[in-house]
Amino acid sequence: MLQGLSADAGGPRFTPLVVVELVSDAKEEVIAWLLGRIRDQQQNGGAELLVEQLDHGVGDQEKVNPNLFVVGASWQRLLSGAEDVGLFKEYSDGSMRGFTCANKHNFKDFKGDGGSFLSMAECQYIIKHELDTLRAKDETHVPGYSRAKLYPGKSIIRRLQSKGILVQIFPLHEKEELKRLSFSWYKKVKLSLQPLDDIRHYFGEGQALYFGFLEYFTFALVPLALIGVPYYLFDWEDYDKYVVFAVFNLIWCTVILELWKRFSATLAYHWGTLSRKKAFEEPRPGFHGVLGFNPVTGREEPLYPNAKRLLRIYLVSLPFVLLCLYLSLYVMMIYFRMEGWVLSIHDEDPTFWTGVLLFIPSIIYAVVIEIMNLIYRYAAEYLTEWENHRLESSYQNHLVLKVLVFNFVNCFASLFYIAFVMQDMALLRQSLATLLITSQILNQFMEAFLPYWLQRRRNKKMIRKAQKRRTLQDKELPLVEQVRLEADMSTYLGTFDDYLELFLLFGYVSLFSCVYPLAAVLVVLNNITEVYSDAFKMCHVFKRPFSDPAANIGVWQLAFEAMSVIAVVTNCTLIGMSPQVKAYFPDSDTQLILWTVAIEHGLLAFKFILTFLIPDVPKHIQTKLSRLEFESLEALKKKRPLHGGKCWKPRSSPRLSCEEEEDEEEEKRRRSRRRSHRF
Amino acid sequence: MLQGLSADAGGPRFTPLVVVELVSDAKEEVIAWLLGRIRDQQQNGGAELLVEQLDHGVGDQEKVNPNLFVVGASWQRLLSGAEDVGLFKEYSDGSMRGFTCANKHNFKDFKGDGGSFLSMAECQYIIKHELDTLRAKDETHVPGYSRAKLYPGKSIIRRLQSKGILVQIFPLHEKEELKRLSFSWYKKVKLSLQPLDDIRHYFGEGQALYFGFLEYFTFALVPLALIGVPYYLFDWEDYDKYVVFAVFNLIWCTVILELWKRFSATLAYHWGTLSRKKAFEEPRPGFHGVLGFNPVTGREEPLYPNAKRLLRIYLVSLPFVLLCLYLSLYVMMIYFRMEGWVLSIHDEDPTFWTGVLLFIPSIIYAVVIEIMNLIYRYAAEYLTEWENHRLESSYQNHLVLKVLVFNFVNCFASLFYIAFVMQDMALLRQSLATLLITSQILNQFMEAFLPYWLQRRRNKKMIRKAQKRRTLQDKELPLVEQVRLEADMSTYLGTFDDYLELFLLFGYVSLFSCVYPLAAVLVVLNNITEVYSDAFKMCHVFKRPFSDPAANIGVWQLAFEAMSVIAVVTNCTLIGMSPQVKAYFPDSDTQLILWTVAIEHGLLAFKFILTFLIPDVPKHIQTKLSRLEFESLEALKKKRPLHGGKCWKPRSSPRLSCEEEEDEEEEKRRRSRRRSHRF
Repeated sequence: MLQGLSADAGGPRFTPLVVVELVSDAKEEVIAWLLGRIRDQQQNGGAELLVEQLDHGVGDQEKVNPNLFVVGASWQRLLSGAEDVGLFKEYSDGSMRGFTCANKHNFKDFKGDGGSFLSMAECQYIIKHELDTLRAKDETHVPGYSRAKLYPGKSIIRRLQSKGILVQIFPLHEKEELKRLSFSWYKKVKLSLQPLDDIRHYFGEGQALYFGFLEYFTFALVPLALIGVPYYLFDWEDYDKYVVFAVFNLIWCTVILELWKRFSATLAYHWGTLSRKKAFEEPRPGFHGVLGFNPVTGREEPLYPNAKRLLRIYLVSLPFVLLCLYLSLYVMMIYFRMEGWVLSIHDEDPTFWTGVLLFIPSIIYAVVIEIMNLIYRYAAEYLTEWENHRLESSYQNHLVLKVLVFNFVNCFASLFYIAFVMQDMALLRQSLATLLITSQILNQFMEAFLPYWLQRRRNKKMIRKAQKRRTLQDKELPLVEQVRLEADMSTYLGTFDDYLELFLLFGYVSLFSCVYPLAAVLVVLNNITEVYSDAFKMCHVFKRPFSDPAANIGVWQLAFEAMSVIAVVTNCTLIGMSPQVKAYFPDSDTQLILWTVAIEHGLLAFKFILTFLIPDVPKHIQTKLSRLEFESLEALKKKRPLHGGKCWKPRSSPRLSCEEEEDEEEEKRRRSRRRSHRF
Repeated sequence: MLQGLSADAGGPRFTPLVVVELVSDAKEEVIAWLLGRIRDQQQNGGAELLVEQLDHGVGDQEKVNPNLFVVGASWQRLLSGAEDVGLFKEYSDGSMRGFTCANKHNFKDFKGDGGSFLSMAECQYIIKHELDTLRAKDETHVPGYSRAKLYPGKSIIRRLQSKGILVQIFPLHEKEELKRLSFSWYKKVKLSLQPLDDIRHYFGEGQALYFGFLEYFTFALVPLALIGVPYYLFDWEDYDKYVVFAVFNLIWCTVILELWKRFSATLAYHWGTLSRKKAFEEPRPGFHGVLGFNPVTGREEPLYPNAKRLLRIYLVSLPFVLLCLYLSLYVMMIYFRMEGWVLSIHDEDPTFWTGVLLFIPSIIYAVVIEIMNLIYRYAAEYLTEWENHRLESSYQNHLVLKVLVFNFVNCFASLFYIAFVMQDMALLRQSLATLLITSQILNQFMEAFLPYWLQRRRNKKMIRKAQKRRTLQDKELPLVEQVRLEADMSTYLGTFDDYLELFLLFGYVSLFSCVYPLAAVLVVLNNITEVYSDAFKMCHVFKRPFSDPAANIGVWQLAFEAMSVIAVVTNCTLIGMSPQVKAYFPDSDTQLILWTVAIEHGLLAFKFILTFLIPDVPKHIQTKLSRLEFESLEALKKKRPLHGGKCWKPRSSPRLSCEEEEDEEEEKRRRSRRRSHRF
């Protein structure tokens, strides 16, 4: 995997892994300085990586950015980097262990010469990590840019990024690998499962977990879809049967979410991310504050008081979100009033034009909702940025929460209104079907057709370019062209929107399942096409993303669980409102409501007990984890001194390479042994 | 602290820490063998502790058991034991770190000669751990007892215990220390807080956390009590005000439980139990099964299939518990019917005898409840034992759950019936007051008067004995007498019953707070006396318990939280049922119920969000924990080989002492370094 591209004419003399693009008018000083720091030895605070500027290519184009650099690393540097990032690999005894240079030969598939031990995605992740942790020494600002301040310990790449000197940094695709992956993934019509391991191998754990969840979710809905079909076909408009269906649905939702946790833990264990300790998280690029010492690491970095952030969240963001929700509801009420007004006009004097008028409110409402979603998304990003979160994960969580709540209200408010205020089940069923089907068609268009069209346009461009440089006889694209092409591809912005879509679909299935059992069928169909369109867009539309060593689907698990709790409430209410159930309590509404509430509470309690009873990690994985922990405890008993007491001073000493560290280590031990002999 | 007792005439030549009592007719072989194993060096699989048989004392008593042994250890053995159990002590930089022999000089208060570095409770805990991990080598059975089977790796002490050869093993009290503790704790009337650190120092973390929780709970109730008093005094029988009170109460309950988690984390951090890694838990003494290899440790031990245990739990224990609950409800119904029947007799023909008859049902019901509680407790213990849990913690959790549910139903079922079926608020208030006050008086009697009486009887016995051995002139009790006296004291069975009592009190306060605001006042009064009686009984009635390195109150936190969720439901229902609230919805019960349910759901949601928003560990503790983790990650980067690959074979090799291990370690490192040089 590390061969193949390096023999190219005009290419660098190492396997290029990652591309760094600076602005085209970047000053010479900063380029020289950055390359120097990247190449410099680790003792001197460098990253000890290989980096080369890309040739200008054929040179006939004026507009191309000359400041494109490819970064690679020697095999040994990659190994010590793998240890730095705490990569877990399969050990010779079949368990997953943190990779260390010292006992590298005990890992499965380890060959001294490189080979397939580290996947290219892992190598790229390592290089990204090493670039990110390249820190300023005594520079007070970026050379040539006196306004881009630096202080000892500040990540250079992040400062360059936040000042716009660094345009982007992205990993390269592997054409051969990608061809193989896309063939086994979506290019053949097949009944087999997705090649999750291959996806993880190429795109990393975060992506693979998304596709795993998408597939799991689809399969989990199949039983519901199978039960839903006869309801639709035989017109079982009988709520007695709906009750059975709804209760099954509620328990099913809880069970599948719990089982997913177990499944995802199994996946994450085998991918080595489950027990991997997260390295200390650095501040995100946009984070700012007064310079001080981080209480955890003792390193110099900007500090921002938590109280101030909380004030911003509770006094500005929270009221803003509530205001937006209120606005969204207000718009919905206007829509319903317009709808009623138009209907009354049509009823009074039905002509062709009033018939057309009937569609106007829906169209306006749909457009307004889309605009609101768009504006809100920008506002949410701006506000979350302004809240100045120190960690990327915290920023993401706050953004997800904001967008989630608004989207939930925007999508479901009208359905809630129809169901519980208007109490019109026929209209509810109709709206639900309309919403599901339109959103499905829209999605397929945005995610399959649009990418396909983009891809065709790109192909044409490629052909035009190929014609220009007909002199080059080889069929393979030269590295320069590949890099320029990929630099132009859109950037994949993470799994956020994909999960959001699944979340809303899950809402349609679970919230109103008892009035529209066919929803599951529609969602299953949607998901099947979704797999293909998402796979296609990952492989051919976007730049390759850096792999993200996720151990689970994070905040989305919580979001799905919250949805399944709300589903209990809505379904119980819907059942309680049905005329068939009302018939059981002919003389007393009170009795009916009390029973409904009691059953709802019972179901909620049962749900929580179920969540509690099903262990989150399967027994055999749990055993393996305990074994690892037990062994590390046993190993700790073979005691040695901690390097304690000095952690409070900012560390500027560069990390050393494997061998040297060992020697230093040795020396330290000898000293400490002498100390303990004294006693 | 380690001096003082050793100079005693006839006593052993070391500080006695723990007493081991064998049955009086124990065979000579087993005694010789056990003492040999305890004294033997660690290389040979012994515990390397000091042990001596206690003198028969004055010798005039025939009935005394001669097989009493005191166990102690050398200072250095205690230190290496402290490392074995993973004790956390304060480091020179103020953080808490796992103690290791190698850098012992970097710990605060460490003096080479012993001194106060390890508290006596810690020493006793270490000795208990070392005795517990004393394992059989190639013995097939206990010498002299061919039916007490052994296999390599089986804990000797546990086998002796389960076969009844070992009667008990308990730590000794320290008279001086105890006198000082009891003076600062409860012997003076004072307004200061309890000396939690001293309690922890003497009794260990589990006890200290209980007293900390008791005190915290009392203080947390003071605001409620202060608000409750005017309600009672000025007869604010006005539900509008009760609504305010109830909502405040509900939010308050959530907040105090969350804040307790933070407070307990702070305590546990400073006591070194928060970040302490639990050693791998050994099977509990009564655990049995087919001999096999533990998948985690690779050691030989009995295995019992989990599926079988689950079958026992779900097919036997669960139905049994449900049956008992049904029975309890049935008995309650009989009580209410008897009550009604007696009332009707009295109403028909009111005489003195029918007046007396009025009390009969309550008395019978109270007695029956007590009997049921007692029988159920035995049944629960038997069933949980029969479920054959591998771990003591799992056994405890299952027992707590069983007893908790039954006690909850037994205590609150009649109140629920009065409140929601009979809807008689006056009777509810009266029953609540009666229950609270009687349970309080009973408790004070059982926990303060009874112990006092026992204590007086004990004192008399001591005086009688002292008269007999008037020849001994010293005022201090000789060790032999002290040991014999303490061996006769009752055994403290853990904090279970104390927490259960608090749990029920919490139920009275939270479940029905909106009809009886005075409950908080009564509970506060009860808790204040409870502190004194519990402290007295810990110091003077029971044997000293082994300290239990708890980091939190465990399953009880969950139980209290569950209670506060149920409280939301009951309080909302009570408020909804009140005539004052009903007056707002004069024409429609439905509206009233819907509003009540909506508000209840809102409160529940708010509660969960609040639980989610308040972090469980205070920021400054979190920072310290992350710093420790960060440092250990940094230290891990100073890599060294794992001792991997061999963990699957049963380990019979004895653990070595500090120094030797270091040498072995050194050798291993050298070998591995050679390996890594090869590459």
